[in-house]
Amino acid sequence: MLEAALRSGVAHRASCFEVYARTLPPSRSYGVVSGTLALPAAIESFKFKDAQLRFLESNTPLTKDTLDYLANFRFSGSIWGYRDGEVYFPNSPVLRVEAKFAEALILETLILSTLNFETAVASAASRMVQVSRGKSLIEMGSRRTAVESAVLAARAAYISGFDATSNLEAGRRYGIPTQGTVGHALILAHDNELEAFRAQQRVYGAETTVLVDTYDIYQGIENAVSIFGPGLRAIRIDSGDLKYEAERAKQRLVSLGAKNTKIVLSGDLDEYALSDLSGTCADAFGVGTRLVSGSGYPSANFVYKLVAIDGGSGYRAVAKTSPSKSSKGGVKDAIRRYDDNGILRGEFIIDPHQRGPRGWSPADQVQIPIITEGKDAVRPTPVSRLRQRHLELINMLPEQVRTELQPEGPYTTAVALQN
Amino acid sequence: MLEAALRSGVAHRASCFEVYARTLPPSRSYGVVSGTLALPAAIESFKFKDAQLRFLESNTPLTKDTLDYLANFRFSGSIWGYRDGEVYFPNSPVLRVEAKFAEALILETLILSTLNFETAVASAASRMVQVSRGKSLIEMGSRRTAVESAVLAARAAYISGFDATSNLEAGRRYGIPTQGTVGHALILAHDNELEAFRAQQRVYGAETTVLVDTYDIYQGIENAVSIFGPGLRAIRIDSGDLKYEAERAKQRLVSLGAKNTKIVLSGDLDEYALSDLSGTCADAFGVGTRLVSGSGYPSANFVYKLVAIDGGSGYRAVAKTSPSKSSKGGVKDAIRRYDDNGILRGEFIIDPHQRGPRGWSPADQVQIPIITEGKDAVRPTPVSRLRQRHLELINMLPEQVRTELQPEGPYTTAVALQN
Repeated sequence: MLEAALRSGVAHRASCFEVYARTLPPSRSYGVVSGTLALPAAIESFKFKDAQLRFLESNTPLTKDTLDYLANFRFSGSIWGYRDGEVYFPNSPVLRVEAKFAEALILETLILSTLNFETAVASAASRMVQVSRGKSLIEMGSRRTAVESAVLAARAAYISGFDATSNLEAGRRYGIPTQGTVGHALILAHDNELEAFRAQQRVYGAETTVLVDTYDIYQGIENAVSIFGPGLRAIRIDSGDLKYEAERAKQRLVSLGAKNTKIVLSGDLDEYALSDLSGTCADAFGVGTRLVSGSGYPSANFVYKLVAIDGGSGYRAVAKTSPSKSSKGGVKDAIRRYDDNGILRGEFIIDPHQRGPRGWSPADQVQIPIITEGKDAVRPTPVSRLRQRHLELINMLPEQVRTELQPEGPYTTAVALQN
Repeated sequence: MLEAALRSGVAHRASCFEVYARTLPPSRSYGVVSGTLALPAAIESFKFKDAQLRFLESNTPLTKDTLDYLANFRFSGSIWGYRDGEVYFPNSPVLRVEAKFAEALILETLILSTLNFETAVASAASRMVQVSRGKSLIEMGSRRTAVESAVLAARAAYISGFDATSNLEAGRRYGIPTQGTVGHALILAHDNELEAFRAQQRVYGAETTVLVDTYDIYQGIENAVSIFGPGLRAIRIDSGDLKYEAERAKQRLVSLGAKNTKIVLSGDLDEYALSDLSGTCADAFGVGTRLVSGSGYPSANFVYKLVAIDGGSGYRAVAKTSPSKSSKGGVKDAIRRYDDNGILRGEFIIDPHQRGPRGWSPADQVQIPIITEGKDAVRPTPVSRLRQRHLELINMLPEQVRTELQPEGPYTTAVALQN
């Protein structure tokens, strides 16, 4: 595509590409963006190295001019987008890239790879947080996704309201609180459960979470209280009928005098299980596989589409028009309308290059500047701030929408603003 | 866990951990391993750097002894496993790690992250290849998974029999054939479809794949043949009722004299769509989202369990025994039995440390040495060889098992060998 565009000259036309999702996954009423703020660094370091250029020279029909173009590639355009933690709906213009056609084209895979995975996790995570009704959630999915993805997933989950991650690298890189519990291996490695508990007690005292389901949960709780004392911070149960086991464990703990010992549940939990368990006496949940895989929807299915190009007389809106998967051209941002209670009543598409008469000001625009003429336009934002903002923002949706597991469809869809 | 194990002394016990899956995803009769051969390099480079140690020092209760242990960490144990492209079933001992308890423990997340993602993709890919009945398959999912995962997914898909990838980095890194087509943006960037086709024609002549569905498929085909001539290599259709459009396109191409022009179909294809489309006149399929996300099962759900530990008098088999999710202890490899036609009749668990009387020789063992006493034990194997081996190996399953989309369950389950 690049070679053809350079030769025909369209490579140098001013253009606008847009990232959006045609639909949300079934049974989701909203999505949560993640990855936008990682783009400046990712794009800055997106360079073609010698080994890559040599590969392209030997394995593709690219001409010397095109290889030179790649060797000197540096993004000089501008990007606006929904920030990490922002809510989105079908057709929301989640990212807008305005750049020379070739520059924007080259970034397609990098941008979509960054947004699609993290957004899938953030969207699933937000829903899990909402249905858990204030109970503590720990991200524990590192083992169930690829190595680098695990760190990204921990970040996305935290922004959507998870309380901690078991991924230490995410803790180091982003300052996310880390938390973990021991696994069954530590218990099994000792000659018996009491020995294992003693080993753990020597390190943490009672300020720890004890895994009690290796052999027999009931006996495990008794052993735990005997070693750690009734001041034990928490126990974890990872198997069995969790609802039943949690209640039974609570009774046993109370009868042993450990009435403040918290109960952590884990084991293939998804939003349905969390919703179900949120009414029990459990205090916290460890969530793994289902979280890092977007709970059934491991990609946000964002697309990256050319929506406008300047053929010489200003932007011309363009869009695919064939029967299915047609899209709407034009440069887009969005604004929102709320009712008197601050509840979102609609998301409306506007043209950010037209200003004034329609009752919105630039401050209303959902997109923020990410890169301006090739330069990073975002101040570093701590993830804790993004998380706080998401938890405030999510309240623009009615509570029922946030916690409903089988909605009929998205809460709203971004539509063109009518005068 | 590490701190407790170091202090109690179990850290230094000889131990065996095993990677296996309790079940396959529903409607799968077999899985395909991927990632094993990446482990020597991943483990070799798994070091705790200064910044990481400082983070741990400030943010965890690890003692100086434990931090020193991590600073000097180097895996000195041995690993055996099912090689990339190998078939597996529930309870197959996909990986066996024999090492000091602490060394094996530390690798859990690295090993599972590597195997779970790639195996999910390889398993979905193999099924897609089998149901496509010899038609060409191109991996095009980079945009729908995280940046580094995209490269790993391309490798896994190729090993399972995909013919090419659109991921150039995977081509460079692993020598996988690369193939791509233009996207709608190139067509839309030009003033009209004919201009866009001319730009593409100037680069490739007729040796290219032309995207014909931007405006009107029927007209697009006519435009393509008028620009590229009847010798045009291929057209791609990415929208509409693909079955219907493929047949209609074929007729149109033939009527225009382009009777050898191939038809490539793409657009959210999964194994069900591929099976359905394999009977049409289409020649090749581009597969994206559903492939890189494991077609509904984005993690192989492998677990990493301590199965044996030496408390001083040789290995003692250990296993969690609580109600659900119980597992079987003991050091394991597997052998296979075939019928006279070379069809697999069963996979049997053996103890690799016992030899002789049971009618199997070490050459029958499915696991191969991956790391021996800390040293890489695998010769570099080109991915083309792994792919070829997978395509031979898969024939040990009956054809119906390979192509059936709604099997009642796994073809077989690894079980203990009876005398």
